[in-house]
Amino acid sequence: MNVIIRGESRPFRTVEFDEQKNQVRLIEQRLLPHQFKIVSTRDYQETAMAIKDMIVRGAGAIGATAAYGLAQGVCACVDSQPVRFARHVQQVYETLKNARPTAVDPVNAMNRVLAGMRQGHTVEEQKKLARAEARRFADENADECQAIGRHGVSLIRNGMTILTHCNAGWLAFVDYGSATAPIYAAQRDGLEFKVFCDETRPRSQGATLTAWELAQQKIPHQIIADNAAGHFMQCGEIDLVIVGSDRTLGRTGEVANKIGTYTKAVLAARHKIPFYVAIPFSTLDWNLNSGQEIPIEERSGDEVLGAWGTNSQGKRHYLRVANPSSTARNPGFDVTPPELITGIITPAGIFKPRSLWANRKKLGGPQ
Amino acid sequence: MNVIIRGESRPFRTVEFDEQKNQVRLIEQRLLPHQFKIVSTRDYQETAMAIKDMIVRGAGAIGATAAYGLAQGVCACVDSQPVRFARHVQQVYETLKNARPTAVDPVNAMNRVLAGMRQGHTVEEQKKLARAEARRFADENADECQAIGRHGVSLIRNGMTILTHCNAGWLAFVDYGSATAPIYAAQRDGLEFKVFCDETRPRSQGATLTAWELAQQKIPHQIIADNAAGHFMQCGEIDLVIVGSDRTLGRTGEVANKIGTYTKAVLAARHKIPFYVAIPFSTLDWNLNSGQEIPIEERSGDEVLGAWGTNSQGKRHYLRVANPSSTARNPGFDVTPPELITGIITPAGIFKPRSLWANRKKLGGPQ
Repeated sequence: MNVIIRGESRPFRTVEFDEQKNQVRLIEQRLLPHQFKIVSTRDYQETAMAIKDMIVRGAGAIGATAAYGLAQGVCACVDSQPVRFARHVQQVYETLKNARPTAVDPVNAMNRVLAGMRQGHTVEEQKKLARAEARRFADENADECQAIGRHGVSLIRNGMTILTHCNAGWLAFVDYGSATAPIYAAQRDGLEFKVFCDETRPRSQGATLTAWELAQQKIPHQIIADNAAGHFMQCGEIDLVIVGSDRTLGRTGEVANKIGTYTKAVLAARHKIPFYVAIPFSTLDWNLNSGQEIPIEERSGDEVLGAWGTNSQGKRHYLRVANPSSTARNPGFDVTPPELITGIITPAGIFKPRSLWANRKKLGGPQ
Repeated sequence: MNVIIRGESRPFRTVEFDEQKNQVRLIEQRLLPHQFKIVSTRDYQETAMAIKDMIVRGAGAIGATAAYGLAQGVCACVDSQPVRFARHVQQVYETLKNARPTAVDPVNAMNRVLAGMRQGHTVEEQKKLARAEARRFADENADECQAIGRHGVSLIRNGMTILTHCNAGWLAFVDYGSATAPIYAAQRDGLEFKVFCDETRPRSQGATLTAWELAQQKIPHQIIADNAAGHFMQCGEIDLVIVGSDRTLGRTGEVANKIGTYTKAVLAARHKIPFYVAIPFSTLDWNLNSGQEIPIEERSGDEVLGAWGTNSQGKRHYLRVANPSSTARNPGFDVTPPELITGIITPAGIFKPRSLWANRKKLGGPQ
């Protein structure tokens, strides 16, 4: 998507690969929304650190970063002796995998690259295939999101106000994003609409990342406190809700997403406002039988007890807001049941949450 | 209620009057939760400034402050010539009234003091009556809250987790608070329970004031993001919700309160969790015919775009959190319909929201 640099709008992807310099280029997301900076990693170790230190974040984005990082590491190998080359590839793989051990996307992405490499006979062929397969992975991620946009745009009408929660934007993927893809598609189609960004405490990704993204694309938007969505629904000021998902159960249609998503779904159902979840195929979990099996990460209470922001000198720092002697509970995610979800927007079309299993072939699921 | 000063728990009221020194004593609420300080105002002008500058806030608390401020101003008059004395009284009244022109409590409180003074024949008698009537007003405010506690405590059982939103605590009244009164009564009765304080963005009164209050009384509590209550209800971790109100319509049972209250009521109804609103008589509005007539204040977007807190040096300041080029919408209140409210806890007992009008005599309403 576009980023405004010195008044000029320029296209960027969240993750790019410079084959000539053998460098991975990333948006330094920790500085957003206050500063836009591109970081180039010179070797796979630096790429692994960028994943670990959250320079890059979001399922699709770290998947593509790991795929490129693997190609980068493979291509840097000067030893063409096959056994030592294979040992080097394994080391690169492990380093990138261990950068974010609980995430599944880097592993899936790198397995794709390894499978591609196996088609090559020489080390040089394998290097070429690694680059090609990593590029294909990133392109597919962007294509999937673009397809989400093509299907989701049918839900948007002129004059609508769309509520979104947290950041499921292009920063979390290679391009377009999931929940934001229909919004960007609607803008390209010349539709006029407005977006409410839920602040999304405690980490405020809506107020920081989503608002920044929409500002770059010049999409009219306003930030609201998480407390305010119910009131705006009551007043008839919200017409459509689109959110992303961290894990969607193919067997039940339950959706795990950032804490507060469930609340918005309950409110939308009460007010008969359509509530959609936008996901690429990789978000679908075909194994679990119930949302209760989804582990809900309980994060540090410090996130709730204070806020990160910039002071008057433009420096980023943490501010303690809450009563100093109090503690906090901080679940990171919640689970929304299928009866509250109008539809799941996927690259293959829009499905009722309970019909995902019946459509599993189209959705890349098991046979 | 008690405040812990250097490890020792000491009783305080939010507003007190030192008759000998003719000073109003207030808790400097702007420094909470990071510092506890008592401010003494030396004359009625300083008392008016304390209301204007929000050293004291909350309907009951500013009512009592204005009543004491009027008595303070009246008693400071050295002129015993009746006409000039009356002119002085009028000036004190206007000064205190204009300190917070939209609030109704200071006016109601001062009218009570003036009515009391009219029973006196001499200036000296009137001064004495002003002090007595102001004290009576403050005592009644505390008594009403204590009565709310006596009735509301019947809802609390051992082992419960109670959710509350914003601050309807003793800091907003003379003592005990409204939503907190049943909680403090339950503690006195030896019940064991826990409180979840909604953070209450954008001004975070739950994380700051309510959490501070509960910490002073050593009541087990945890702060949660406003986004998290739905998840905890889903998990069966919340048994009861008690909130305050800024205005409750006696004719319809609709409740205006801090933004986010409506959302919690919708969630509680879905999960069949009792949802109660605690109010003194002065919160009842017997005139309006519909919640849609209640003006909803739209406050500065800066509250949503950042946060107030303390930095590592213990200094209070504002931090910008959101994307700098984005704007915000910031409605301060919302309206909860009676069908979502289990009961209204008043000093005269607990009533169904739609039965307030039928019980208006008991509730100090019109004939």
